[in-house]
Amino acid sequence: MTSKHILPTGFRTSGSTCGIKDSGRPDLAVFVSDRPAAAAGVFTTNRVVGAPVEVSRSRVPSGTMRAVVINSGNANACTGEQGHNAALEMTSQVASALGCAAEEVLVCSTGIIGIQLPLQTITAAIPAAVAECQESPAAFEHAAVAMMTTDTFAKQVSQQVDTSGGSVTVAGAAKGAAMIAPNMATMLAVVMTDASLTVDQCDSILRRAVDRSFNSITVDAHMSTSDTVLLLANGAVDGPISEQDLQAVSTAVDSVCEKLATDIIRDAEGASHFVTVDVTGCDSRSTAMRLAREVAESALVKTAIAGNDPNWGRITSAAGYAGVKFDPAFLSLTINEVMVYNHGVPVEYDEPALSASMSRGDVHLVLQLSGGFASGAQSARFWTSDLTQEYVRLNSEYTT
Amino acid sequence: MTSKHILPTGFRTSGSTCGIKDSGRPDLAVFVSDRPAAAAGVFTTNRVVGAPVEVSRSRVPSGTMRAVVINSGNANACTGEQGHNAALEMTSQVASALGCAAEEVLVCSTGIIGIQLPLQTITAAIPAAVAECQESPAAFEHAAVAMMTTDTFAKQVSQQVDTSGGSVTVAGAAKGAAMIAPNMATMLAVVMTDASLTVDQCDSILRRAVDRSFNSITVDAHMSTSDTVLLLANGAVDGPISEQDLQAVSTAVDSVCEKLATDIIRDAEGASHFVTVDVTGCDSRSTAMRLAREVAESALVKTAIAGNDPNWGRITSAAGYAGVKFDPAFLSLTINEVMVYNHGVPVEYDEPALSASMSRGDVHLVLQLSGGFASGAQSARFWTSDLTQEYVRLNSEYTT
Repeated sequence: MTSKHILPTGFRTSGSTCGIKDSGRPDLAVFVSDRPAAAAGVFTTNRVVGAPVEVSRSRVPSGTMRAVVINSGNANACTGEQGHNAALEMTSQVASALGCAAEEVLVCSTGIIGIQLPLQTITAAIPAAVAECQESPAAFEHAAVAMMTTDTFAKQVSQQVDTSGGSVTVAGAAKGAAMIAPNMATMLAVVMTDASLTVDQCDSILRRAVDRSFNSITVDAHMSTSDTVLLLANGAVDGPISEQDLQAVSTAVDSVCEKLATDIIRDAEGASHFVTVDVTGCDSRSTAMRLAREVAESALVKTAIAGNDPNWGRITSAAGYAGVKFDPAFLSLTINEVMVYNHGVPVEYDEPALSASMSRGDVHLVLQLSGGFASGAQSARFWTSDLTQEYVRLNSEYTT
Repeated sequence: MTSKHILPTGFRTSGSTCGIKDSGRPDLAVFVSDRPAAAAGVFTTNRVVGAPVEVSRSRVPSGTMRAVVINSGNANACTGEQGHNAALEMTSQVASALGCAAEEVLVCSTGIIGIQLPLQTITAAIPAAVAECQESPAAFEHAAVAMMTTDTFAKQVSQQVDTSGGSVTVAGAAKGAAMIAPNMATMLAVVMTDASLTVDQCDSILRRAVDRSFNSITVDAHMSTSDTVLLLANGAVDGPISEQDLQAVSTAVDSVCEKLATDIIRDAEGASHFVTVDVTGCDSRSTAMRLAREVAESALVKTAIAGNDPNWGRITSAAGYAGVKFDPAFLSLTINEVMVYNHGVPVEYDEPALSASMSRGDVHLVLQLSGGFASGAQSARFWTSDLTQEYVRLNSEYTT
């Protein structure tokens, strides 16, 4: 098991098997920064959240962090007071092993909902999991693997940026939004950099990146109770950062998040197509996002794509119910760069050829609004998977 | 082919085969009132609408109507100016045959999107279709059958109400929200009564009934370009109507619409479960509706139900992302009257027994909010189907 993805200076990770999963697969990941790291987090907006989200969400604003502990196999969600105490205890154990305050440790859990965490199993394994943390690419991959639930491959990326202070690394690991019976849920991502960022810089960089990546993907529109994206910046590459360097780091974080998010879609349960939905010509980004999202979430669009069917009426009608004002007479649509609907009028096109191009697995939809209410220069991009019989099979299998 | 459903006095219908469908099945329905009938309509709120919606929506406010003409097999949607003229021509032909103004005729179309209507085929058949209209239950069933696309049974209902002026009948026919490749879409319903109602009374009675029936069902959350529900009241049972009689007629329209709407769900494509979602204890009906709808539209809830899996974490988490403020500590959930989640805490229950009860095909979810932000006395009910591999197969088959 080798990986080319390197960790930023001063970060160490481990991935191990503590015994939550019946399968015996790795289920405990630890991310450690040797020095306090400026931190930011973006969390699920679900009203029903897992205990780890409550704990981490309350800690992020306090500033710097030393570690993130993640277990897979159990989401510790809908578990009441007992679950909340278990999340706290996980962070306390990591803090003891590291010699820091519990408030400097963040926690994430992913897996089954509504079952109490096997806390003893986890806490017994934490000292060794912290001790094993290493700076090697292999250790980084182990951590990414230990976050997985129904993912079929580990999602990792790293990127280097030259700054006036030296070469900075941005690296991240994520696990997917796949959801499978009985309750495997959640996307999690940890992004790390050795750039020297303030807490406020972390926060604005992360929010911008998440908007264009993890908040622009959908598998089944089901927001989990545990979705979490964290950014840690430990400043191991020293020195105040220029405005230009800051922009370069921000762009690298964007790129790392986009790669992780699109990997999640490429690994979506049962999916056979990777779908990019672009909406252009809108008066605002939020209008473009609503249109793109409605198309990306339509079961009928997604089943048509599963069948390589350039069924554009489903796409235009999904846009029509997005709750956004536009004049259909100004709507145009291309599928894999073939114009099928032009300013509100159907276009003759080579349907077998277009279907054949869809069958290669990548589908690119571009909805253009060239006039009327929603006219403008704003655009949005959304990524989604298709909806297959295999998705339904995976999610309707009753396994308990 | 016999039906027990009777038409209100003064209404006549026909169903015939004009040749739009390759299958040779009936595809032209006509509903006629012998005298001008007060009319109301509720139409899709999709921005992209079929030409018949544009025509009928503009005519309904003008007051009284004499007929409704419906074709199946082609939705006449996304067809531009040519489609608009075709919809107008259909009503002109019916008006000629009846001897009334074209403005007194409403039109609906359902079927494939984006293909021009075979107008000559339809107009050639209209004179005979109008001439064949009869008041018999058989003629009513013929009309219901001619509206069908992928429906597996005709949806009809009639009900009688005793009023001070005599016995009044409310009857309706509908076709389903089933959507199948390439583009069969749309739910349509025509409700008729011989009660003497004003246009305003029609409108308020219909809006109330639709809110609690056709607007409380979802198969795949895909709003069609052509959804239309019409109410015609011809006053054949004479006389001004008392407040009490009005209430009785309104209740009958509610009941007719609920029966037609739930029949649509029972006949949803590929469905193996009929699901009723109740949300209680909310501060407003709109809050309750949003929660019920989010649960009813969740692909993960619907796949779990397909597998007879009482996977309540998917239900509570779907409620959590409905965009409604509530405190999860006050949330409780029963599935088929078995409590699984009580005030934010999981409950021990007999899971195999609950799964067995779900496997009988009817699933009843009750989400109760007993306190916190959303507390109150308001409730909502939504109906939906499960999401099966068969649904995906039907909707991803590439048939053109």
